[in-house]
Amino acid sequence: MEKVIDLNADMGESFGPWTKGNDAALLDVVTSANIACGFHAGDADTMARTMRLAVEKGVGIGAHPGFADVQGFGRRRISLSGEELANLVIYQLGAAQAMARAVGGAVRHLKLHGALANMASEDVTIARACYEAALRVQPDITIMVIAATAQEQAARELGCTWAGEIFADRAYEDDGTLRARSRPGSVIEEPDLAAGRVLKMLEEGAIIAENGKRIPCRIDTICLHGDGKTALAIASAVRQRLEQADYRLAPLAKVSRSA
Amino acid sequence: MEKVIDLNADMGESFGPWTKGNDAALLDVVTSANIACGFHAGDADTMARTMRLAVEKGVGIGAHPGFADVQGFGRRRISLSGEELANLVIYQLGAAQAMARAVGGAVRHLKLHGALANMASEDVTIARACYEAALRVQPDITIMVIAATAQEQAARELGCTWAGEIFADRAYEDDGTLRARSRPGSVIEEPDLAAGRVLKMLEEGAIIAENGKRIPCRIDTICLHGDGKTALAIASAVRQRLEQADYRLAPLAKVSRSA
Amino acid sequence: MEKVIDLNADMGESFGPWTKGNDAALLDVVTSANIACGFHAGDADTMARTMRLAVEKGVGIGAHPGFADVQGFGRRRISLSGEELANLVIYQLGAAQAMARAVGGAVRHLKLHGALANMASEDVTIARACYEAALRVQPDITIMVIAATAQEQAARELGCTWAGEIFADRAYEDDGTLRARSRPGSVIEEPDLAAGRVLKMLEEGAIIAENGKRIPCRIDTICLHGDGKTALAIASAVRQRLEQADYRLAPLAKVSRSA
Amino acid sequence: MEKVIDLNADMGESFGPWTKGNDAALLDVVTSANIACGFHAGDADTMARTMRLAVEKGVGIGAHPGFADVQGFGRRRISLSGEELANLVIYQLGAAQAMARAVGGAVRHLKLHGALANMASEDVTIARACYEAALRVQPDITIMVIAATAQEQAARELGCTWAGEIFADRAYEDDGTLRARSRPGSVIEEPDLAAGRVLKMLEEGAIIAENGKRIPCRIDTICLHGDGKTALAIASAVRQRLEQADYRLAPLAKVSRSA
Repeated sequence: MEKVIDLNADMGESFGPWTKGNDAALLDVVTSANIACGFHAGDADTMARTMRLAVEKGVGIGAHPGFADVQGFGRRRISLSGEELANLVIYQLGAAQAMARAVGGAVRHLKLHGALANMASEDVTIARACYEAALRVQPDITIMVIAATAQEQAARELGCTWAGEIFADRAYEDDGTLRARSRPGSVIEEPDLAAGRVLKMLEEGAIIAENGKRIPCRIDTICLHGDGKTALAIASAVRQRLEQADYRLAPLAKVSRSA
Repeated sequence: MEKVIDLNADMGESFGPWTKGNDAALLDVVTSANIACGFHAGDADTMARTMRLAVEKGVGIGAHPGFADVQGFGRRRISLSGEELANLVIYQLGAAQAMARAVGGAVRHLKLHGALANMASEDVTIARACYEAALRVQPDITIMVIAATAQEQAARELGCTWAGEIFADRAYEDDGTLRARSRPGSVIEEPDLAAGRVLKMLEEGAIIAENGKRIPCRIDTICLHGDGKTALAIASAVRQRLEQADYRLAPLAKVSRSA
Repeated sequence: MEKVIDLNADMGESFGPWTKGNDAALLDVVTSANIACGFHAGDADTMARTMRLAVEKGVGIGAHPGFADVQGFGRRRISLSGEELANLVIYQLGAAQAMARAVGGAVRHLKLHGALANMASEDVTIARACYEAALRVQPDITIMVIAATAQEQAARELGCTWAGEIFADRAYEDDGTLRARSRPGSVIEEPDLAAGRVLKMLEEGAIIAENGKRIPCRIDTICLHGDGKTALAIASAVRQRLEQADYRLAPLAKVSRSA
Repeated sequence: MEKVIDLNADMGESFGPWTKGNDAALLDVVTSANIACGFHAGDADTMARTMRLAVEKGVGIGAHPGFADVQGFGRRRISLSGEELANLVIYQLGAAQAMARAVGGAVRHLKLHGALANMASEDVTIARACYEAALRVQPDITIMVIAATAQEQAARELGCTWAGEIFADRAYEDDGTLRARSRPGSVIEEPDLAAGRVLKMLEEGAIIAENGKRIPCRIDTICLHGDGKTALAIASAVRQRLEQADYRLAPLAKVSRSA
């Protein structure tokens, strides 16, 4: 049986005159791009530019909605009702769909950003409110979830198409959560080490915590980053190692299966 | 031959805790609603509420994009490039499409708001940039244009489906432009007078300026307002007079013809 | 000994084209106005208008900073660091000071708004971060605190000039907190009842909870509202009752004493 | 007689997670910093950081207000009334004053940013509205004007303390305006050339246009930049050349004289 995997990264995180990340380089490595939708980053012009590039490179386009907080880059927790969360997601997803259409592409997946993602990975009602709203707008969208969290639970409950995601450059606690950035060893900076971990988790079909514990889960996509000292080197190393191990890299929509 | 006409009004212009207009009452009078898309008014929650109501009442939904200027209500002129104008419209139209879909409706038409509309009625390149962008996203959308302005010219040049609009409560200069609000007699406040003028312009197929001059034009829709001392009374009077004169009132999508 | 009391209300809560509240009427009743500083409401033009009116009527001007969340009216909790809270307060206080100066007035007091106020009344570190920042900018400012909460504790610890506030139209729980708006009986709508309660609390020098419990506290100012069915009637009734009971009404700066 | 000159640069133009410019390096070269006030760039946290650094390095702090347009970086023209312009400036100046005070400094000068500066250099009523507002808040503030433009005219008419500014790295037309960036030769990238031009203009007490024409004007400060390939090299070259020519470099407040 063929082994298929998706590589994803957050993109289009510039805003107005300010640039961020290294989208052009990352687009040569990943197969799916999570594109900011204007609320925490990624104004309409940045969205257009980034999506045009993704279409050119054959990279799958995803909507990456976040809280309405440009200054805080969507990383500050904001308490919203379920109805407000739904409308927040619908609005941003719609903007992304139209922009993708305008540049000859289409939104294939949705991934939550920043504090909204964190809250949804802890609270299944928040995840459900967001995902259910996205599915009302685009019933065949693939929901990208952080594997083994409340995000995955919500996607399973909704019976939608989803993809489980692990992180190449972040250490895991033994409850499956990411080690807080404030703790030592939370971020992996050595490309070979990161690539080796990813391969091992894929082979075992499980998240491997720092203390060695295995948390079995479905892994459909690997999250890579463009920022950080060695992020691009990690992204390339992961891709190379996966290809050497006979993984076929392909955008999500061709990977994901329904629950 | 059946006489058909659309009545439209701007709606969904509340924002956060602040309300504006009298949407519920107007929705019983008009057949098309131009719904603010979050940039000058109409946050995502307001959009959802307004569109839900429009769907319930069978009123056609239109996207009503404006400049990104909540404080100025989109009434301040902002100089943008053609590319920026296009992305501004695509983004807001997409958000409106998704929101309409989420509440069981669909966007049928597009009308520009405020200073953006004023600039597009004076400058055909601005109008073209906006309309061409909307058509890339939704090729069958009806573009609502202020009759006999550069807006109409742009729609004709693009060969798209469009609808010509006149105003029930505003006086016209003899070049077909609206008399500036700062000038006396610019706003008509007498319901019978407004209704009579509308009927006359429809019968003559022409805008009638204050000095009596006729500017022949296609009239598909009448713009009504909810704000202002007698706005709602004017809206009702216009509707009643049109029905008495055997006009059938119907949403745009069923009215408009291509150029 | 003379009995002196301040009456305060939130004002300047319009934004751009949207109006809110009944500032002109309230300014004839209160002695201190808490004026929104542009982050949750009250753009620069609204601030100018409101402060000019306050100066004309001899009402004391207070800065009323809130979270940067116009759509949510500053009522959504946002998690910020102590440094970010400090800068949030400094920025808004500065804007208020300059605007007051420009219209011939001066900021005398500071009161936190909405979710920021709620968080500061629960968490003394949040209250301290905000108040300490304000005092760095204006050492002689009066800090208006919700009596018997962490806000008061922070002001006492800082040794600054502060004023203790109770609410005329809200029911209290027996721990001194306001009954949640979602609970029945949380808002008092009967003017005589509200006025009677205020007088009783002043005479006893204590908050009186719904179950009769007394929480002794210093009361320097009574919070009134302009919104709501009977808010203005309550405001007038409270003022009248206090005058009948020989209280002298005076703006905060002439009332408050250091801890 | 001693020759004294100020070197100024725009700073604090980061926003939220996005950085811009090279403030730390520039602060070692300039004597005055024009610090963004949050409307086009420079959120409250960025302002605090930048001002703290300026105080440490003994660099004079200026408020650098712009249009409320983060996405457009204040470079898009927005049409505002005189009253709105005044309130825009008052608000931002106040925020800057408070932030400066909080970090142990003080605002000494004001310089308009971007499109607001361009409009004020063409239209004396716009310049007057802005400067008159700033002077209402801080009567002893030094207004930094682009020499030989409507900005200078407004400052002269107001009889306030002002400083005339020329640009080190921009070519001039023979009407004293800057050559448009879109035209070839508009930006000077050669450090020696830039430094030589500055010295020559100072010695002649005149702007020297590309065609050799002299426009006599008072020159109190030289505008330098941190962005651009050779900007920092130009800044250093200008400073070095001025020191070699026995100019004493000093912040504006100690330089400027009233008209």
